[in-house]
Amino acid sequence: MFMARITGSIVSSQKVESMVGQKLLIVEPLRLNDKARAKLNSTGRTFIVVDTVGAGEGEVVLCVQGSSARFTEQTEKLPIDAAIVGIVDQVHVGNHTVPIPN
Amino acid sequence: MFMARITGSIVSSQKVESMVGQKLLIVEPLRLNDKARAKLNSTGRTFIVVDTVGAGEGEVVLCVQGSSARFTEQTEKLPIDAAIVGIVDQVHVGNHTVPIPN
Amino acid sequence: MFMARITGSIVSSQKVESMVGQKLLIVEPLRLNDKARAKLNSTGRTFIVVDTVGAGEGEVVLCVQGSSARFTEQTEKLPIDAAIVGIVDQVHVGNHTVPIPN
Amino acid sequence: MFMARITGSIVSSQKVESMVGQKLLIVEPLRLNDKARAKLNSTGRTFIVVDTVGAGEGEVVLCVQGSSARFTEQTEKLPIDAAIVGIVDQVHVGNHTVPIPN
Amino acid sequence: MFMARITGSIVSSQKVESMVGQKLLIVEPLRLNDKARAKLNSTGRTFIVVDTVGAGEGEVVLCVQGSSARFTEQTEKLPIDAAIVGIVDQVHVGNHTVPIPN
Repeated sequence: MFMARITGSIVSSQKVESMVGQKLLIVEPLRLNDKARAKLNSTGRTFIVVDTVGAGEGEVVLCVQGSSARFTEQTEKLPIDAAIVGIVDQVHVGNHTVPIPN
Repeated sequence: MFMARITGSIVSSQKVESMVGQKLLIVEPLRLNDKARAKLNSTGRTFIVVDTVGAGEGEVVLCVQGSSARFTEQTEKLPIDAAIVGIVDQVHVGNHTVPIPN
Repeated sequence: MFMARITGSIVSSQKVESMVGQKLLIVEPLRLNDKARAKLNSTGRTFIVVDTVGAGEGEVVLCVQGSSARFTEQTEKLPIDAAIVGIVDQVHVGNHTVPIPN
Repeated sequence: MFMARITGSIVSSQKVESMVGQKLLIVEPLRLNDKARAKLNSTGRTFIVVDTVGAGEGEVVLCVQGSSARFTEQTEKLPIDAAIVGIVDQVHVGNHTVPIPN
Repeated sequence: MFMARITGSIVSSQKVESMVGQKLLIVEPLRLNDKARAKLNSTGRTFIVVDTVGAGEGEVVLCVQGSSARFTEQTEKLPIDAAIVGIVDQVHVGNHTVPIPN
């Protein structure tokens, strides 16, 4: 899985029928910065994910990729390869807490 | 999933039998540009995907990869690892709308 | 899926039993060149794929990756993650036809 | 699979119900350094994985990705794409032993 | 699939129970060098794979990734995402034979 920040959303009116009603969010994966591991930096990549936990723009979330994105009650059998499965509250590295970017 | 622009199509007359009749489109994944997130840029990569929603060249679409590409009525059991599952109408980031490239 | 050129083949005499008799080809994925999209360039990567359509060295083919490589009659249940599922005859981008490299 | 060092952990209070009670660790994949292959270097990437073997921060572990992350008793049917399946005690290359970073 | 050279092995005494007795090898994927395609070069990446064919250090092998790594008698249901499924004896490109590095 990876941590990512929700930066936006997309609207798709013409889509596969099973996808109707699914919230489609734009996320940017984050990584700890080198050496210090004291900050979360964007990787600059852009993914579209389905939200299963009521997350909103600006939040840092936990995303799952691949077939496992179908292993929640809401997403079972959907043609999706990425889903949000949690909201990240705290990030701990050694003795310090890494701030969640906002 | 990822957003991508349809740039072309391919013709394959000799292929696995189950693939007969499937439209094979060329897409280029898109990403939001750094910092501003006000534009969608091509990543320069080239994928071949099966269309399930009647999309056409020039349109920006939502693509799914991996085993989940088989989770639509049309693509069930096909030997494909990527499919278009929606046409992207609008992209929202914060308070602004990101233009769909054409 | 991706387009690739067949550049060679490998021989493996000691292998998993279910793989006996499978033709193992070397392919290099191709991508459209930037902006013009008038040529197919090699990505320089090297993959080994199983052939299911009688393709030969020098041909440009359509390859599938992941679990879907097992979704042809010939490859069902094989321990493979990539297969050729078609031979590419024509590549169309906008109003022009992209030459197939040989 | 890949070797990785555990650098931290995350807390997620709002998450998919099946994930309650799962320990979420931050890992950085490692690779042998070029030529000499005498050291393990971080790739600088950041993944979140579920622990199944009681590993702790600072340890070097073996991680599995994709659907196979669901093939342990503890993780069956979880919406996860990465899990720790072993603690790495020794790394051997040719006649020497590569030190485990701490 | 990809070709790789076996460079070492790892020892993991604390691991998922189903993994007991599995040989864990370190491999470096190989690619043909540009243009000439007359040599196999290391990509510098490091993967851990399960051996199913009795391969040893220094040998060049064929590796499969993802769920298909579970499609051999020995690896069925194991939490692994990569396995060796053959030993590479010969590599042919056009009219020449590419030497197997040792």
